[in-house]
Amino acid sequence: MNFSERIKSIIKKKDSNVCVGLDSDPAKIPGCIEGSEGERILEFNKQIIEATSEHAAAYKFNMAFYEAAGIEGYIALADSIKLISWNSLIILDGKRGDIGNTSAQYAKALFDGLSADAVTVNPYMGFDSVEPFLKFEEKGIFALCLTSNKGSFDFQKAKLENGKPLFISVAEKLSDWNHKGNIGIVVGATHPDELQLIRKILPDSPFLIPGIGAQQGDLEKTVAAGIGKDKAPALINSSRGIIFSSDGEDFAESAGFKSRELKESINNCL
Amino acid sequence: MNFSERIKSIIKKKDSNVCVGLDSDPAKIPGCIEGSEGERILEFNKQIIEATSEHAAAYKFNMAFYEAAGIEGYIALADSIKLISWNSLIILDGKRGDIGNTSAQYAKALFDGLSADAVTVNPYMGFDSVEPFLKFEEKGIFALCLTSNKGSFDFQKAKLENGKPLFISVAEKLSDWNHKGNIGIVVGATHPDELQLIRKILPDSPFLIPGIGAQQGDLEKTVAAGIGKDKAPALINSSRGIIFSSDGEDFAESAGFKSRELKESINNCL
Repeated sequence: MNFSERIKSIIKKKDSNVCVGLDSDPAKIPGCIEGSEGERILEFNKQIIEATSEHAAAYKFNMAFYEAAGIEGYIALADSIKLISWNSLIILDGKRGDIGNTSAQYAKALFDGLSADAVTVNPYMGFDSVEPFLKFEEKGIFALCLTSNKGSFDFQKAKLENGKPLFISVAEKLSDWNHKGNIGIVVGATHPDELQLIRKILPDSPFLIPGIGAQQGDLEKTVAAGIGKDKAPALINSSRGIIFSSDGEDFAESAGFKSRELKESINNCL
Repeated sequence: MNFSERIKSIIKKKDSNVCVGLDSDPAKIPGCIEGSEGERILEFNKQIIEATSEHAAAYKFNMAFYEAAGIEGYIALADSIKLISWNSLIILDGKRGDIGNTSAQYAKALFDGLSADAVTVNPYMGFDSVEPFLKFEEKGIFALCLTSNKGSFDFQKAKLENGKPLFISVAEKLSDWNHKGNIGIVVGATHPDELQLIRKILPDSPFLIPGIGAQQGDLEKTVAAGIGKDKAPALINSSRGIIFSSDGEDFAESAGFKSRELKESINNCL
């Protein structure tokens, strides 16, 4: 079972396309959780994971929030990963990418060291920056294609000589490089029309779709374009909209409710 | 004194444009250094820094090599940074970049948490992914423009509708964004002709130039294009060519010699 098939199987078993983004910024963790910064992150993640595991096909850790907490953050990240059961995918979102011998070190750090199932990769440096990650055949990458932020207009949407925007060229090259079925991509829900174009280029690849919730992407259009009738594998990520939906003592219960609500909203669109 | 002026001043004081890349892969650290992985990295860096400090205007830590060693690597990185004296620049090379609120966390992690003077940033996600780093006015970034690897042909050299390659558009946008004089760029020594074009767009900005040594860039052309008669601020990085120039007990002495040799070779081209 390659990476793409594995994601399809998890989504089917859980009847859910939800990815819960654990952007566990200590400044936003409810005050009812006490302790050192690292202890607070870990306890928060523990309660969020317990409350959402039924509905989460995947968990995505944005590494910046852990790195900002220094060594305590690093330990909290490693310990939080261990709390996730085998039937949810673990995505480490670090948007790494460097020359070949260096990307090989990042792959080792994230796949071997931190037991990630998948990582996000920045493709700006081209094939040899992506290749070392692909050598881990049972693991996978989500390469940035068209991101959810305003800055996506600066370069990603720049038109090339052939009239196509850069992100289309990125999608086409990623399709060419996908010999082992372990390349997925990141496309923001804030670009539903472009999502449809990219899905045609990569019909069976896993898509990681942020931008629902705080970034206000349109869910119905996103589901139609990213998953569609053929039930293509896509994970729709919500971070702040789930994990920080309440800052009271009911934060975990609220996160569980919001993750179930997102799961059902997606399924209702299908 | 803004970032660009600060680099100029360090280069002038040290009479050196050399950046020593501490890509301290434990697998390549000489066998004469014993201990745990973290202890070996720290002891190796300590001896390399002592032997090269006279000739190094900057030290660049490629974060991948530390992350690959897990928590020990993180501690070795933080402790190694403390060994660098105030008159050399500390560059953390992680090629980070994410949506605004996330890039702000990376900036905090690297500038506040690890005391970097400068960091490398991947510009693919556009302005709002770069902006949070620029808010640290006395610190600076080196944004990837045209990298030294083969993969630079995949997207960076793709021609845009206006006939210019993408990396030129990246350089032009970075120039527009440089209100605080704290934007530098990364251009590989493997592209000396393009280096000259980019220097025209960013005449006063600091350039970080990898690709000399193991990657076989041409030093003379690089110095002429990147520094030139006007003595524009540029740091020429060598990693493996300095730190792993000997795997015997004389590794530090050899690194000192190689860093002085590179300094003199650059100065002879000026």
